[in-house]
Parts: sequence; C-alpha cells; structure tokens
Amino acid sequence: MIVGVDLGGTKIQAVAVDGTDVVADAKLPTPRDGGDAIAAAIADAIAAMGVDGVTAIGIGAPGVIDRANGTVLRAPNLNISASVPLTRLVADAAGVDAVVLDNDVNVATVAEHRMGAAVGARDVLCVFAGTGVGGGLILDGELRRGPRGLTGEIGHTIVRDGGRRCGCGGIGHLEAYAGRRCLEAEARRLHDGGRETALVRLAGDRQMKSSVFAKALATGDEVAAELVRDAVDALAAAFASAVALVDLDLIVLGGGLAMKLGPPFVTAVDDALRARLFVPSLAVRVVPAALGDLGGAVGAALLAS
Amino acid sequence: MIVGVDLGGTKIQAVAVDGTDVVADAKLPTPRDGGDAIAAAIADAIAAMGVDGVTAIGIGAPGVIDRANGTVLRAPNLNISASVPLTRLVADAAGVDAVVLDNDVNVATVAEHRMGAAVGARDVLCVFAGTGVGGGLILDGELRRGPRGLTGEIGHTIVRDGGRRCGCGGIGHLEAYAGRRCLEAEARRLHDGGRETALVRLAGDRQMKSSVFAKALATGDEVAAELVRDAVDALAAAFASAVALVDLDLIVLGGGLAMKLGPPFVTAVDDALRARLFVPSLAVRVVPAALGDLGGAVGAALLAS
Repeated sequence: MIVGVDLGGTKIQAVAVDGTDVVADAKLPTPRDGGDAIAAAIADAIAAMGVDGVTAIGIGAPGVIDRANGTVLRAPNLNISASVPLTRLVADAAGVDAVVLDNDVNVATVAEHRMGAAVGARDVLCVFAGTGVGGGLILDGELRRGPRGLTGEIGHTIVRDGGRRCGCGGIGHLEAYAGRRCLEAEARRLHDGGRETALVRLAGDRQMKSSVFAKALATGDEVAAELVRDAVDALAAAFASAVALVDLDLIVLGGGLAMKLGPPFVTAVDDALRARLFVPSLAVRVVPAALGDLGGAVGAALLAS
Repeated sequence: MIVGVDLGGTKIQAVAVDGTDVVADAKLPTPRDGGDAIAAAIADAIAAMGVDGVTAIGIGAPGVIDRANGTVLRAPNLNISASVPLTRLVADAAGVDAVVLDNDVNVATVAEHRMGAAVGARDVLCVFAGTGVGGGLILDGELRRGPRGLTGEIGHTIVRDGGRRCGCGGIGHLEAYAGRRCLEAEARRLHDGGRETALVRLAGDRQMKSSVFAKALATGDEVAAELVRDAVDALAAAFASAVALVDLDLIVLGGGLAMKLGPPFVTAVDDALRARLFVPSLAVRVVPAALGDLGGAVGAALLAS
C-alpha cells in the first residue's frame, strides 16, 4: 500500500493507493508552527485512513524543494522560511522508511498524465489556477524538470509587458490576472476606488474564496465578469505562447479557481486560445483537470510507487 | 566532404565542411522562379566552391518543411506556395544522392550548439531576429521538435496581449516588436503620421535594411531609439517567459538585425531580461550568436554529417 500526501497551505490531504485505485483518504488542517508539527499531522492523517501495510509515502509540497535530500528549502504558504528535512521527519513520525518529496504542481501534473485528463498525451501542459498559478510540463511523455527544477512556472510568464503587478513583484505575469490572491487584491482595489462589487459584499473582511468569484459571477456582478474575462484572456495568451514555444497538443486546466468556475470557464479559455494560435488550424485543446482535489495526493502516491 | 546550404529568401549560402572546419564557401542570389531554378542555383553554388568528393548535402530552408520526405511544403520567402520535393531536385542537379532538408532556424540552432555560442549548454534557446523572429530550443542537450515540428516559434509568443499586430495577423507577438519587417512598417506608419525619422530618409522607397536601423540609431534618431527600445523590452519579456516555462540557463541571440545592432543590443536585452526574471538571482545569460552569416549553412552541413 502506497500513501500520497498533498501538503497544502491550509490542509493536508492523504490518500492510500492500491495499484491505481484510491482505497482511502483523509484530510486534516495544516499546522502553522513548523516542520515537526507538520510531520506529526501528516502521520496523523495517514493513521486516520486506517490502512495496513504502508510501504512508502510520497509527499507533494508547495515552495522550493530539494528533491534529492527530501528537504523543503522555503515555503511561505507553510510558514517555512528555513530548510526543513521533511522526509526524515515524516519517516520518524509515521514509522515508514521510504518517504519521497516533490513539488506539489509536478506531482499533480504526473497524476493527470498517468490517471487523469492527460492519459496518453505526449506533450501536455498542466496548469493549476488557485491561490497562485503553477504548472507542470510533460514533453515527449516525460515530466520536464530543467537545470534548476523550475520548469512549468507559467504563472510567472509575461502576458502583458508593462501590465498588472504580480504577487512576486513582477509586471504583467499571468498570475497577476488569473491567481485568486491577485484577483482579490484587484477586486478590493476597484471597490475602494468606488466600483461596488458583490465580490467584496460576499467576502467581507474574510478571504475572497474561489467560490465567491463563482457566486458573484452567477449574480451578474460586473466587476467579477470583467476580472474573469481578463483571467480568461491572460490564460489564453500564456497558453498560446507556450504552444508556440514548445509545440503542445493538450493543455489541462485545474486548480481551485478553475474548479469553482467550472466547465464554462475552461471552455472560454479554449475559445480564447483558439483566437490566439499563430497557426489557427492547430489541433490544441484545453480540457478540465480530471482528478480534482485528490490530484495532488494521488500524484504524490505515484511518485512513491 | 560535407556541404551545407542555407537557402534564404535573397541568397543561397553554401559551405564545405571537413570535420568541424569550414574549408570553402560561396554565395549566389536566390532565384524567384520555383523549385527547379532553386535546385540548379544550389548546385551552382556548390560547384562554385570547387571542392572534390562531396558525399552529402544538408539544406536549411525557411517555411514549412516535411523533413521525412525532404519537401518544402510552403515558403512565402522563397515564392513557393505548393509542395516542392527539394532534396530530390538537388540530388539530381548536383549529382549527390545523400541530400537532407530541415528548417533553417533548427539547423542554425544546432550549429550554435555544436560549434558556436552554446557549446556545452544543456538547455538553451537560440533566437534569430532578422526579417522575422525565429528560434530553436535545445532541451537536455537535444534539439526539441515537438509533435508537429513547430517548437521554437518564439516570434509568435505573446509579449503584450492586445498590443501591436504581427505580420502573421496575431496581436502582441514578439515579432511585431522585434522583426525587421514589422519594425519597418511601424517606422513608416509613424513617419506618415508626422514623426520625421532618419529611418525613412535613409531607406527611401527601398527596403529598410537592418543596417539602416543601426545607422539611424547612431545618428540619435528618436523614432529609431524608441523602436529599438521596444524591441529590447519585447525580446526580454519573451525570454523571461521562456525561462519561466522551460527553465533555461542560456539564450543565444543572432540574426541580421541583432548582428547589425551589435553587442550593445544584446547587452541591453540581457539587462532587460534580468529586470524581468521571476527569480532575480537566476543565472541566465543572453549572448550573441557566434557563427554569424555562415551559421545556417554550417548547421545544414552538421545535419548531413
């Protein structure tokens, strides 16, 4: 039995996988007080599934990962700013020797490629639009990592040089237009500037969740419609550039924001991409991710298989 | 002895290569009247080098190439709109059986990687800014082609969604800002709109060559300075996106326009890229192509080796 863990900023999602079947899953909140607490919570989530004979654990984590040493070097979303030897801590806490660690987006990409929306594709980009926007790239059937393991950072590709500022400080990045956190900042800025929007009415002082964007859009809110239209255009521009640069025939679009906005959002991106392809007849499709919330954990299990 | 031929829109450049030494070269104008005339001119250029014992010929050609069949499917710059079996025509005209054909930008990329500015690099993008803007991508030490052989079309990546129109009809493409033909169109548009520029004074009704941009820039012409600054920014934005998407540590910049504008232009792009990297400390360099005008022909010879 292999266990996969998706270590997110707010929750730890664990699955137990037998072959390609998910036989159990469990979810716990992510502690905010460092590596030991996180490792203990991961062990608790695994124990909560009540499965026997766990032989290996795979973990997908956000931030900068040193795969070879199983270390999280930096992960602002986990409140980790110094190096944490996560595989060793989890091995001790869970009593399992074989623990491997990788970037959360890479494992989710592998999951979509092996068991999800990209099965059989040779050249595919998987993009996850949630709090931020990340991606993974399968070229010639293999996950590309690149010289520094940075491949797939499509959220930080430039769609409008001189445009909106990204959370990373860069200008005109895709994430500035299609990441939930940047969309929230823009909605509040517009609201403060005098444009009333259901987005702020619904969210109040709390985080403006992806579901809030879906609700505001459904009520015909103008600001929400405008922001989502810009997100669609930005995703399409970034995808058109990716197709021109590396030649792809499939793009998988997932993540919390894409999931909440649903199939019409993915279809709108597909249409907007078609209008931007440099060879209009190219067969390139944008399809929704198939594994949903469990994709990251399933991919982590595949990593450990 | 291997012969390489760079078949361009205005000239045919041939080289003879022994091992990695270029032992002869010759240049002829490109005929405008179809495949048979082009094949005859290629044979003439090879004969003009006066080398004995030619065992194979490699050809790099612009446009859409069917490598497997040695056919040029479409090449507006060569006045070819229907399929031309170029390798067979050249084999007959030159009396050499082994003739291979590939895209001109791919062969120039291979040449820079094997003998030029990118020797030893594992992950490098070679970009040629001339009449248009094309590129080739070496990933993990190998030229990437992609499912349709379209990899490297960086000229048609989007740097400013909603921006300037490209020759291909697309909006905000790199080539619209950094391709000589688009720069000429923009200069004439500005001139017609009332902005006097040395670019139009120097070119008159003739083609605005890359050397005209270099001259106008040297005289302090404002329009030329503005257009070149926009070209630098657009190249830097496209390169920053390429680095984020596929993780590169080297970018080689060549082509007629880059060569005429010289090292200060390449250095300006390198600086502008640094300001746009999503991880500012990344070691990524932009360097000038090393093989100059002969790069394409040398790459074609390598292809046939």
